[in-house]
Amino acid sequence: MTSPTLAATAPVHLPADHPLVDGRTSTSPLVRALRGDRPATTPVWFMRQAGRSLPEYREVRQGVGMIESCLMPHLAAEITLQPVRRHRVDAAIFFSDIVVPLRLAGVDVDIKAGVGPVMDRPYRTADDVARLVERGLTEEALAPITDAVRRTVAGLDELSGARAPSGAREPDNSPEGSTTPLIGFGGAPFTLAAYLVEGRPSRDHLAARTLMHADPETWARLTAWTADLTGAFLRAQVLAGASAVQLFDSWAGSLSLADYQAHVAPSSMRALTHVADLRVPGSDTGVPGIHFGTGTAHLLPAMRNVLTNAGITHPTVGVDYRTPLDEAAAAVGRMPLQGNVDPALLGAPWPVLEAHVRDVVARGAGAPGHVVNLGHGVPPDTDPTVLTRVVELVHSL
Amino acid sequence: MTSPTLAATAPVHLPADHPLVDGRTSTSPLVRALRGDRPATTPVWFMRQAGRSLPEYREVRQGVGMIESCLMPHLAAEITLQPVRRHRVDAAIFFSDIVVPLRLAGVDVDIKAGVGPVMDRPYRTADDVARLVERGLTEEALAPITDAVRRTVAGLDELSGARAPSGAREPDNSPEGSTTPLIGFGGAPFTLAAYLVEGRPSRDHLAARTLMHADPETWARLTAWTADLTGAFLRAQVLAGASAVQLFDSWAGSLSLADYQAHVAPSSMRALTHVADLRVPGSDTGVPGIHFGTGTAHLLPAMRNVLTNAGITHPTVGVDYRTPLDEAAAAVGRMPLQGNVDPALLGAPWPVLEAHVRDVVARGAGAPGHVVNLGHGVPPDTDPTVLTRVVELVHSL
Repeated sequence: MTSPTLAATAPVHLPADHPLVDGRTSTSPLVRALRGDRPATTPVWFMRQAGRSLPEYREVRQGVGMIESCLMPHLAAEITLQPVRRHRVDAAIFFSDIVVPLRLAGVDVDIKAGVGPVMDRPYRTADDVARLVERGLTEEALAPITDAVRRTVAGLDELSGARAPSGAREPDNSPEGSTTPLIGFGGAPFTLAAYLVEGRPSRDHLAARTLMHADPETWARLTAWTADLTGAFLRAQVLAGASAVQLFDSWAGSLSLADYQAHVAPSSMRALTHVADLRVPGSDTGVPGIHFGTGTAHLLPAMRNVLTNAGITHPTVGVDYRTPLDEAAAAVGRMPLQGNVDPALLGAPWPVLEAHVRDVVARGAGAPGHVVNLGHGVPPDTDPTVLTRVVELVHSL
Repeated sequence: MTSPTLAATAPVHLPADHPLVDGRTSTSPLVRALRGDRPATTPVWFMRQAGRSLPEYREVRQGVGMIESCLMPHLAAEITLQPVRRHRVDAAIFFSDIVVPLRLAGVDVDIKAGVGPVMDRPYRTADDVARLVERGLTEEALAPITDAVRRTVAGLDELSGARAPSGAREPDNSPEGSTTPLIGFGGAPFTLAAYLVEGRPSRDHLAARTLMHADPETWARLTAWTADLTGAFLRAQVLAGASAVQLFDSWAGSLSLADYQAHVAPSSMRALTHVADLRVPGSDTGVPGIHFGTGTAHLLPAMRNVLTNAGITHPTVGVDYRTPLDEAAAAVGRMPLQGNVDPALLGAPWPVLEAHVRDVVARGAGAPGHVVNLGHGVPPDTDPTVLTRVVELVHSL
């Protein structure tokens, strides 16, 4: 497999028909906010917006396994588009699962209902890891991802009327002639490595956290490999048309700052270097990158450093629901923020939720850019009409 | 049921034969450290030291359900004593489960292997809660707890030789004539309420966190009730001979500081007021109280305030493995600390673990008292000889 692209290497131009290059997404509220600007309406999307809260999702997923659905391009594109159609959110997030790159690299992983990703066995010895790192992600293996992203971007163009053959335009939130951007999605190297070491989901990721101390070399080798997998996965999405990326570290919050810095930050940085060299031709403008984890109040500055040290030209820190955005801004410094409506409030009466959303927007006003999102994923039992109403509220503020 | 004892009410004397009164535990390293002193050896015990890591525990638990074992006084006492015998730790922690007070109050709860506590159904409406609060903890219901604590304290006396009929003394860590103290154990009102609202363990406690916003009055009523249950449970343990208490909030870390302060701190304080009025006769010395939760880096000062506002005369904050003790001391101010060896390091080679334990002890040196513990419970697959070696190391420093 390819070695990580270092931030210092020569920039690589995005394709001429890329939405960030031909201007389709450059004026969108999302891209503007991620570039530290303040568009007329604050952009909003929801982590896990494509998923079980939508009846149209449950409909198309009938009889199709989770990983399988991620690898069927027409289905992954359809699922990615559903919440844009329904909620008029300001971004699509590529429908995938954190472990998809593992499957594409030939690891025997499945997603069991009610459990989560389960490996054929735990991978935790030096030998296990030596065998893993022989595998890589070929262009051929990534073809279903590339295909799904292309279909999604075409679908977003159509929704926005930007390139619709008929010129018909549905009233989404994109400025005239622009299109709703797609955000590429990848799991952070630590989260992927934790699944491999544990062999399945775990509460405290003890075996992974033991390995990083018991055998730091094997841990470093494993996480460099998962970083390159996720990096290649993100890069393929960007080259196929994604206008930003989000690196999602589900479990970073289980770590002390010292462990995060010594054993996790280097591989997260490595993953992001895979997209950090990409540039809008004739400019210094790269692809915006968002880094998010839960329970990360103590890690926010370290996560900011991961983005900047990787060479991401337009970094944004995602903030979970536990840390108010004004406090996050104080911790992170001048950088756009994404977040952080508490998903628990989606089930509260509207006046309670409305007051909370207004508070989130007000606290985000101090950041140079603000993308409204949840402070964690959409709970599966969420009433989707509530999400639509939140979008309308944010756009009205 | 009784209303909570307010800190301002007249003090109640501990019984004359209580270990804190007749001096059996007053000179122990644990009680001295919890009182802000620096005994010659730093005391050490482990959360979940009584449990699955010990073969002698697995032996006596054969064929006995978890809650059932907590309610069989001879068995609960034996299990509580096992780690003191084996590891020579400086404290026994009363073997129980967070949901035992619910069972004693007549709630239909069971602990399912591999799942955790499961209620007959979720309790989340105003009506559900109105019916719950009619139940209480009678002295009769608490009899198995009182009995188990008495047996445990007698067993600890015997182990230490303090009151052994034969005068025979095993070489534990208690100063001559003293006995190893027992710490009473109770789950915090939020954790109990979250189990009730969810009906089972959950990752984010969404339903509970929704209820506190959607219907704050019902939430307050529910948590006042769980506070009184846990408070009565702790008080019974102290009156029967426990020399300190630990209030354990498994899930406080899932909350923002604002939610913790508005919706959780009041009931945690209420729980602790049930033991805050108890006094060593003829003194202002109350029962030391430890408050611990995981993922609480952002909550440590608020948890300190819970202890002091409840009127605990000798408060100690327990710190999870994510926050170094010198940072915790800076956040909490002059108060003894308990913690915080990372349980993940118990599986690392001894030199790595030893360096970590030495670091924990060094970082705790700035606190007025330090009780060494883990930063979370003993993992079930821990090699018990490693725990014994940690005790020996801490005692040698």
